[in-house]
Amino acid sequence: MNEERTPEDLIDQLRELAEAGEWAKALALFAALHPADLAEVALELDDAARRDLLDHLPTDVTAEALAFLDEDGLAAFAAAIDTSALLAVLNEVPDEVATDVLQQLEPERQRDLLAALDREEHIAALLAYPDESAGGIMRSGFVSLNEGLPVERAIETLRRLRPPSDRAYYLYTVDGDQRLQGVVSVRDLIVAAPGTPLADIAERDVHAVGVDIDREEVARTLQRYNLLAIPVVDAGGRLVGATTADDVIDVLAEEATEDMYRMVGLDEDERVFSPVRTSVRRRLPWMLVNLLWAFGAAAIVSLFDDTLARFTLLAALMPVVAGQGGNAGAQTATIAVRSIAIGDLDVRDVFRATRKEIVVGLANGIAIGVVAGAAVYGWDRNIALSAVLAGALAGSIALATLLGVVIPLGLKWRGVDPALAANIFVTGATDILSFVLFLGLAALVIERIA
Amino acid sequence: MNEERTPEDLIDQLRELAEAGEWAKALALFAALHPADLAEVALELDDAARRDLLDHLPTDVTAEALAFLDEDGLAAFAAAIDTSALLAVLNEVPDEVATDVLQQLEPERQRDLLAALDREEHIAALLAYPDESAGGIMRSGFVSLNEGLPVERAIETLRRLRPPSDRAYYLYTVDGDQRLQGVVSVRDLIVAAPGTPLADIAERDVHAVGVDIDREEVARTLQRYNLLAIPVVDAGGRLVGATTADDVIDVLAEEATEDMYRMVGLDEDERVFSPVRTSVRRRLPWMLVNLLWAFGAAAIVSLFDDTLARFTLLAALMPVVAGQGGNAGAQTATIAVRSIAIGDLDVRDVFRATRKEIVVGLANGIAIGVVAGAAVYGWDRNIALSAVLAGALAGSIALATLLGVVIPLGLKWRGVDPALAANIFVTGATDILSFVLFLGLAALVIERIA
Repeated sequence: MNEERTPEDLIDQLRELAEAGEWAKALALFAALHPADLAEVALELDDAARRDLLDHLPTDVTAEALAFLDEDGLAAFAAAIDTSALLAVLNEVPDEVATDVLQQLEPERQRDLLAALDREEHIAALLAYPDESAGGIMRSGFVSLNEGLPVERAIETLRRLRPPSDRAYYLYTVDGDQRLQGVVSVRDLIVAAPGTPLADIAERDVHAVGVDIDREEVARTLQRYNLLAIPVVDAGGRLVGATTADDVIDVLAEEATEDMYRMVGLDEDERVFSPVRTSVRRRLPWMLVNLLWAFGAAAIVSLFDDTLARFTLLAALMPVVAGQGGNAGAQTATIAVRSIAIGDLDVRDVFRATRKEIVVGLANGIAIGVVAGAAVYGWDRNIALSAVLAGALAGSIALATLLGVVIPLGLKWRGVDPALAANIFVTGATDILSFVLFLGLAALVIERIA
Repeated sequence: MNEERTPEDLIDQLRELAEAGEWAKALALFAALHPADLAEVALELDDAARRDLLDHLPTDVTAEALAFLDEDGLAAFAAAIDTSALLAVLNEVPDEVATDVLQQLEPERQRDLLAALDREEHIAALLAYPDESAGGIMRSGFVSLNEGLPVERAIETLRRLRPPSDRAYYLYTVDGDQRLQGVVSVRDLIVAAPGTPLADIAERDVHAVGVDIDREEVARTLQRYNLLAIPVVDAGGRLVGATTADDVIDVLAEEATEDMYRMVGLDEDERVFSPVRTSVRRRLPWMLVNLLWAFGAAAIVSLFDDTLARFTLLAALMPVVAGQGGNAGAQTATIAVRSIAIGDLDVRDVFRATRKEIVVGLANGIAIGVVAGAAVYGWDRNIALSAVLAGALAGSIALATLLGVVIPLGLKWRGVDPALAANIFVTGATDILSFVLFLGLAALVIERIA
């Protein structure tokens, strides 16, 4: 069993050894690491130290580590290895890892390496699939066996092929044209009586996905049916690969991050320790969009400057209305965006969802309106002001709740990512509505409150 | 291969058949469904129809569907089945499914059913593990084999045990005291030469997790090492179960939803079509907390009523400062919360993260301050007002950015879920800071602007 190591201590130790040029000791330490940990340690080194390290690591060790890197990590590794060494590494990794590495390279380097690879044609085919499709995330090298094969022949075939064990969990059965017919597990093979054809023991109710469908859909199908792998077929129903649950985990984690980030106008590639310049450049554009909304709201407020001059308590209460409305809108938008992402909410549900949110918005709006109205009465003993605040809060919360469900569904309907909208439109529109409602109502009854 | 069905059409069809009492036809339709789809259709029926359906379904069909339900679904099923029928179902499901069902029952019914079960002792032990621990999510029934066993004897054992294929992906090797020693795949068994002891072909570098550790940690370990299953061991290192990647997918999806919801003050159990009463009750408390912050901010603003009365344009620009600050805080808090969740950020990184966010906040704050100051100069030709707005924006954005990283890390350090904080503290505190800065600066230079 493996004691968990703390990569932080190791990095320090390895950096010292590397700087001292003590590669024998450093490599001995690395040899004891799991490839996933080695990949992490190498990423934490600076560029020069990473280049030195990868220069000294045996090709097969580097090859193993590549399977544990995300796109940024692959790009960093590829940049640290010279082209001839990278070619040697790529010839040792599974096709889909080679494809992922090639995708990170500038076109010229990609072309040169691809041409020099042993499996050029197959990898060129994989490169053609869009990143976000089933074809873009599938692995190749899964075992497919003719369904007419008797179980003992299938076992012999496995013995000969010696597939990596993470490709041999499900064995797919195909007909003479490589069309997917069913699935058997290795366990089924060894418990079946000799002579039984695979077709007799195969599960025929296989959930497969088309090579072109979106990777989120692949993830949802695997998740829905509690599968550990899902086969990918081409338009003719022929098996071209499969996606395993560990890759789906990465897809789902990325998609969740993307949704959370987009809701507040962040780029999904930003990380907590991205360089300052990157962070500034990526957050600024959305803040400028938000600034436009804010000036729109300011223009609305400035229309009411007579009212505000007569009664400055209104200025103090304005942010209460806008804040509560914005909050109600953000809550509903979060539920809508997440429900769309996990498949619980779709465009056809628009009326059912809207009806529900109108009622929830009104109920919460009235409740908050009454509480806030009572509180302000305690503060200022001004019943007209309390009524204006209560009415504006109820209206603002109800409208914001409605926008929170209608806007994401509307964007989904137009084919835009619903998460992109959640804050830009919902809180921007809510601010303006809140000020119009609150200051408009106040202007109507200004004689009674000021 | 399986054509995807659309449960919506089926529900209508099944509801009609059920209402007409045509159970033979309804059951024939259900028999063609995957248990995951059956579970979904049954959940979409109303309580009475669900009870009728489960009354008519064969015990083994109901038992299969249970594996695809989440906690709410299990509770709905359990409520629709009478106790003796439920006992029959529980006797056919794997231990961990029985445990999950029992957890949904009122104490008396749980006790009665547990006492009547075939495997009372084992399930009582599983019930004792906390829901959110490795023990709470693990499956039992995994195959463990003595490491001294030769491969052909191991194959014989598998033939005799006939474990479900989703439990036979990894075979764990143990010593005489059931202590986990290594892992072999079925593929390894069939490619090894007869006579080889399991110890010779087992991978000894096994990543195992303790039964008490948090399920998020289990998920992260499995994800980090791209595993399809991870063994769970007790304090003595003895194998007690394992968790598979499909269960980890559910854990990660739930945790992502929880983080997104908590950031805006939602209860993680709310769904888009939760009953109105539930939605109101769950969203209202957080809105009341937010109302307290808003009144705090209003009290601050009201301190400046002389300033506001002399120059009402300040009231119009107040929300610009607060909105931009709030937005900058929400962006940083989202990155911090998500980075903590996926393991990229920890309390020990507080200085490094804070230093970075101070620089980013100042850069964004100055940029937005300059743009907004210039825009206001275009509007009002008032250089002092522009300077006040620019200064307040720069200060507010920089402070909000800092709060966005410090508050989540502070809560993590105190053992509180960082997501809980993101909006309550960050935007509430930012509003107040923004108003103090903007109106305070304006009050200092009021003679020049009004």
